Amino acid sequence: MDRLFLAIDVGGTRTKVGLVSEKGKVFYRTYISTRRYVRNRNLLINALIKVSRDLMLKHNLASRKAIAGIGIGLPGPVNYARGIVDFLPNIPHWKNTPLKKIIQNKLKIPTFIDNDVNIITLAEWKFGAGKGADNILCMTLGTGVGGGLVIEGKLYRGASFAAGEVGHVPVNEKGPRCNCGGTACLESYVGNRIILKTARKLFKKTDITLEQLSDLAARKRNALAIKIWRETGEKIGIVLSGVVNVFNPERIIIGGGVANAGSYLFGAIRATILKRAMPSQSSAVKVVPARLSDDAGLIGAMLLVKEGLKLKG
Amino acid sequence: MDRLFLAIDVGGTRTKVGLVSEKGKVFYRTYISTRRYVRNRNLLINALIKVSRDLMLKHNLASRKAIAGIGIGLPGPVNYARGIVDFLPNIPHWKNTPLKKIIQNKLKIPTFIDNDVNIITLAEWKFGAGKGADNILCMTLGTGVGGGLVIEGKLYRGASFAAGEVGHVPVNEKGPRCNCGGTACLESYVGNRIILKTARKLFKKTDITLEQLSDLAARKRNALAIKIWRETGEKIGIVLSGVVNVFNPERIIIGGGVANAGSYLFGAIRATILKRAMPSQSSAVKVVPARLSDDAGLIGAMLLVKEGLKLKG
Repeated sequence: MDRLFLAIDVGGTRTKVGLVSEKGKVFYRTYISTRRYVRNRNLLINALIKVSRDLMLKHNLASRKAIAGIGIGLPGPVNYARGIVDFLPNIPHWKNTPLKKIIQNKLKIPTFIDNDVNIITLAEWKFGAGKGADNILCMTLGTGVGGGLVIEGKLYRGASFAAGEVGHVPVNEKGPRCNCGGTACLESYVGNRIILKTARKLFKKTDITLEQLSDLAARKRNALAIKIWRETGEKIGIVLSGVVNVFNPERIIIGGGVANAGSYLFGAIRATILKRAMPSQSSAVKVVPARLSDDAGLIGAMLLVKEGLKLKG
Repeated sequence: MDRLFLAIDVGGTRTKVGLVSEKGKVFYRTYISTRRYVRNRNLLINALIKVSRDLMLKHNLASRKAIAGIGIGLPGPVNYARGIVDFLPNIPHWKNTPLKKIIQNKLKIPTFIDNDVNIITLAEWKFGAGKGADNILCMTLGTGVGGGLVIEGKLYRGASFAAGEVGHVPVNEKGPRCNCGGTACLESYVGNRIILKTARKLFKKTDITLEQLSDLAARKRNALAIKIWRETGEKIGIVLSGVVNVFNPERIIIGGGVANAGSYLFGAIRATILKRAMPSQSSAVKVVPARLSDDAGLIGAMLLVKEGLKLKG
């Protein structure tokens, strides 16, 4: 029988908890509101423990061996090896939280934690758009622009577990100051808020949404909307040209809300890489949309445990 | 007794051939003029075979087992797995040359070939400024700007054996067209020729050399020379900020003629990374000068064979 895993996907607004098989099947999912438990970190930690216990009882999985492990994805930097959450930009009071140890001690089940982009990267690699590839950059476009790397068939975390920050590659020498402390980072050109700001100005509409902007381009062939997506794609393509020249991946997977803009965005990204990256590197790489939907965080959390426990298959 | 290796370092002007022990000791070195053998590729290949045979005879190493393997570094892109030289930008007629097979068939000794920057990276990692580190970017500053990567304790070559091209990361969206086909690449700001062009203009001297420019800064504290090195370091630091954010290495090793400019160049690179890269990544990385001298190419060629034959130690 397939092994079963408890998977937790902590988000700034809500947290998803589920049971996932090692084949990537999500048997059950439930949600708790993250916002309800932000006054101190123990509130959220206790809620996570309670929902996990309830879920295991409900499914007759309360014996320790029924669950092979617990995987937790978090929206912020995590010291993977030590199992410590460095901090969570959108959830207060989490600085230096040894979450792995806390959960393991309470539930007596092997637990692994990592940042959510690494977890999505694991999911897309094993079950999504990255299947079969050994060298991958997985990029998430949202309010922030994140990234994860698979190198030689292994998730690559870097010397301080901070690798993959493709949103913080400079597009120019000079430019807008970024939240990260840097200058002219990709994120400050193509983060959701920036795209919306441009769209609101160009369309003279203060309530336009990203979905509408995608729709305007994709279905209505609106020239202004197409222009916004093309320029967004060019900026991303410029940074990816450099990343492709250095890292020479075989696949780049792009997900997140903005990625739904579809062909204009992807067309501009691909054209820019072909134009600007070196021929050997640009001809070796495919730029593809992410394939997993909302469950990527749960599936990736399961894969995190399999990776941590060195389970095959 | 230490194993012995035959190491060949092909350069655009001259080619170095030597005997190297597995401990990195270079016992013997000799040179042939590359320029004499450029009319067709067989001239140079035959010269390499002859000098190798002569060397083995001279040192009573003609029995096949006396030499554990042959390693060859080449100044251009190489398909490492297939053992084929893609082309050599400064030596004509080498397109798609199956050099590994040719040498192996003639000399009956296991042969491995790779591009010279990967080979220098191997040397600096095992015997130079990279000792003890598992995640390294090794950068060479010259007419061209090259790079090699060690990732998780292994030389990383990429999906098409073209990884490491840090000289071709864009510094800006717009800028000078680069030889590689790209736009505003680092190399087009900090390649030797560009630095000299700037220096000749600023000093109104058409015969100034890089050595003089280094000397003017380091010893004479000449303000103009210092300015040139600082601005060069800033450009390098901007690109490295992005590379550091994505790849999160523990060490960046910088070598090549320009690296001799010393403290002004390195100071500006380090300051720019600290200012622009993310705190977790910038605090994890050390930027250090290369440590091996002229023999890096021979030592690295020996290491290439050890890597290829999976010899330990």
